[in-house]
Amino acid sequence: MPEGSFAVLDSMFHPRSVAVVGASTHDGPGSFVAALQEMGFDGPLYPVNPKAEEIQGLRCYPRLTEIPGDVDHVISSVPLRFVEQLVEDCAVKHVKVLHFFTAGFSETGDEEATALERRVLARAAQLGIRVIGPNCMGLYVPAAGLSFMPFLETEPGPVALLSQSGANAGEFCRTGAVRGLRYSKVVSYGNGADVRESELLEYIAEDPETSVVGCYIEGITDGPRFLRALRKAAGAKPVVILKGGRTEAGTRAANSHTGSLAGSLAIFDAAVRQAGATRVDRMEELVDSVVAFRFLPSLRGPRAGIVGGGGGYSVLASDEVGSYGLQMPALPEETQHRLVEFTPTAGTSVRNPVDTSVGWGPEGLKPMLETLRIVAAAPNIDFLLYHTSWSWGPNRSGGPNIVDAATESATKIGELAAAVGKPIVCVARMPTTDIGMAGTLAFQQVLAQRGVAVFNSVQAASLALQRLLASQERREFAGAK
Amino acid sequence: MPEGSFAVLDSMFHPRSVAVVGASTHDGPGSFVAALQEMGFDGPLYPVNPKAEEIQGLRCYPRLTEIPGDVDHVISSVPLRFVEQLVEDCAVKHVKVLHFFTAGFSETGDEEATALERRVLARAAQLGIRVIGPNCMGLYVPAAGLSFMPFLETEPGPVALLSQSGANAGEFCRTGAVRGLRYSKVVSYGNGADVRESELLEYIAEDPETSVVGCYIEGITDGPRFLRALRKAAGAKPVVILKGGRTEAGTRAANSHTGSLAGSLAIFDAAVRQAGATRVDRMEELVDSVVAFRFLPSLRGPRAGIVGGGGGYSVLASDEVGSYGLQMPALPEETQHRLVEFTPTAGTSVRNPVDTSVGWGPEGLKPMLETLRIVAAAPNIDFLLYHTSWSWGPNRSGGPNIVDAATESATKIGELAAAVGKPIVCVARMPTTDIGMAGTLAFQQVLAQRGVAVFNSVQAASLALQRLLASQERREFAGAK
Repeated sequence: MPEGSFAVLDSMFHPRSVAVVGASTHDGPGSFVAALQEMGFDGPLYPVNPKAEEIQGLRCYPRLTEIPGDVDHVISSVPLRFVEQLVEDCAVKHVKVLHFFTAGFSETGDEEATALERRVLARAAQLGIRVIGPNCMGLYVPAAGLSFMPFLETEPGPVALLSQSGANAGEFCRTGAVRGLRYSKVVSYGNGADVRESELLEYIAEDPETSVVGCYIEGITDGPRFLRALRKAAGAKPVVILKGGRTEAGTRAANSHTGSLAGSLAIFDAAVRQAGATRVDRMEELVDSVVAFRFLPSLRGPRAGIVGGGGGYSVLASDEVGSYGLQMPALPEETQHRLVEFTPTAGTSVRNPVDTSVGWGPEGLKPMLETLRIVAAAPNIDFLLYHTSWSWGPNRSGGPNIVDAATESATKIGELAAAVGKPIVCVARMPTTDIGMAGTLAFQQVLAQRGVAVFNSVQAASLALQRLLASQERREFAGAK
Repeated sequence: MPEGSFAVLDSMFHPRSVAVVGASTHDGPGSFVAALQEMGFDGPLYPVNPKAEEIQGLRCYPRLTEIPGDVDHVISSVPLRFVEQLVEDCAVKHVKVLHFFTAGFSETGDEEATALERRVLARAAQLGIRVIGPNCMGLYVPAAGLSFMPFLETEPGPVALLSQSGANAGEFCRTGAVRGLRYSKVVSYGNGADVRESELLEYIAEDPETSVVGCYIEGITDGPRFLRALRKAAGAKPVVILKGGRTEAGTRAANSHTGSLAGSLAIFDAAVRQAGATRVDRMEELVDSVVAFRFLPSLRGPRAGIVGGGGGYSVLASDEVGSYGLQMPALPEETQHRLVEFTPTAGTSVRNPVDTSVGWGPEGLKPMLETLRIVAAAPNIDFLLYHTSWSWGPNRSGGPNIVDAATESATKIGELAAAVGKPIVCVARMPTTDIGMAGTLAFQQVLAQRGVAVFNSVQAASLALQRLLASQERREFAGAK
């Protein structure tokens, strides 16, 4: 495929009709029909399976060619032995994109399976059919009603994800959604036999619906083209890459998974840096970095004003901030004086970090919010970092409902964030009870709705902010928009 | 205090009677009376507060000296201006240990407050009264019915924690309890004006109820004594230390928190290594390492057999294992052949990591357990690492209840662990829903009850195992028992 084929991929992301061939007759992973219905796909949706009359309330066709009229997009769950016939059937129905959920191709390392993949791809190319996969989940595009899994967020947004792994794509989307991420285009492209990293990056660079890009990549097919595509994408918007197979052990696993031959991490890293992109080491860090790029583009420096309850937590928070190259200047005298007015002396500090137990008292949230407001206003800090936990405190018998308390707290912090004109970064430490989880999720979701970045630990926040600041420098250096 | 005063501290951990002076009249953090009742303290318990007649159903005394007979242990929540009188009152009642929850002493940096702390300590020493704190939560000793917080586990166990921070001690105990840790002696000692790290380590070294020790330390008072005490403790049992104030920012915060003057991390690290102890960087790692030392003492080498669902997860799991110095040898041909018999080919691998989706199928748990059994039996692996997640899969409408599924899975893995004679290490990735959290907690708790180590991520598990193996080497080298 030539570089710059924006229109081809754009139509891939907006099919007018979809057929699921080998459609599952029961729920579960791989029930694409149910996932598409849940996402509200509003074009014709055709289940194809000779063993069923109806699937998910839709008429089921015995074969693709039995469907009346043309079909834009086909999802294949058929066994390997049917795939060559399926390609021919696709040609009959003028199919534009064929997505193989079907696995067992080149990633097995088997010669015959690799030859089959080559034949299928060559024939599809001959027929002008683009192939997604094989061995992948395909597309999740909320605005187009496409989904590859149940329970994904239906509201669209500006985050794109390009992933060789379907399960990792699902985990990213679900985890990110809780933290406020909404998606433009998510592609799980597996073995990447046709549509793959470089072409997708070239498209995403120009996609007006995307402002931040995450990638999970196990292997690169064409190094020079990838570097060009990455430069183009990272020059247009932040690109964060999780490289699967960064160790020898991981490389062997990646080879089994998607048939990828991962190259040297040092070379990959150099390419990423040159392009002005960001590489991360784990899935959690991919989410954290995308959250930071999405919600904290206005961050202007490394100076944190830290507020939270607990002396020991404050010390450990300071260590994280310090170890990730952020700063924690002493607050101005005036700020400290204002804080002393309503911070109980016992076991607390107002210098920075501000260790305060206000907020657990009978006055409710007011003193905690006032603390945040005063610290945020300090002229020598670039952002406010508020750390808390919903495992504890309001959960005591007779206390307020933890979900209500977390919701109220997040609502007020959201209002404050809109008012102070400085980024507020929130941390809710992971809970150890299910009621604590309910509180934590409520806190995260309400903050996220208000565009406030929220992380699971001060470490995670500090690392993401360090990478955001480093990327801002690199992208300025690389002359990015 | 002379070194080796085992009896003095042992009686501190087993008071016959407790008075809470300045007892809170309402629930919340600092309600020591409620916490002690909840933990089942069975000696006389005396709330003291001139403003109440009764607290938590107990007769409340207006002043310590009004209590009939002697009192072993006093918890002080009184304001600073009453502490000198309280010490005198303690002498009248032959009090042995005075714990100051009261804060505002030397940690404030205030000259007058520091002088007061010195006077109080000198007078207590003169009267033969040991002091815990000030500025701390004190003791949690389930076997003796002592607790400093509500909702702590009542079952005793072999893990000790020595912590300068009360909130960190609480977080450690709650988080660890979910993962199966049970406690012998937990001490939050704050400023450590009298009872502190070295004496506690000397005691814990000899304590027959303790087999693993965790520490949260912000500052050391007497370097040479600390090194001797640490050598003694680490020579007798594994000691894991989280050092608060490992950065310049953290050191400043530690000084505000407990008045600690943290020294150089390099010197601290050298001391820890020489003694054969283990230093970690964060609270989560402290829990993870103690879990590893507690439940995996039989680990004999770094070779992992990895089993889990999802190709991308398997790649990332391999990367973690690889980056923390563990190994992932290819499974023997025979093992691979046995696995192929019931592993669906599509998108899976049996080489190591074993990427299997068996366990989500209609056959239920049986094939997943059979996979674990076969991999565990491979002669070239030292331990089995099973990674999963309870956010997903069984939560689909019409599927089994997620808590039931997680419980059944953990029960069967526990049985397998008892049968295979090789360590099984489990990972349940953190969920993103409250129902997922309920499933995850059930999985963790059932495994923990059966003595199976469970972690929140493959990264956390790999780091803890790396440290465990390194410590085994160091402790052998240091000639530890």
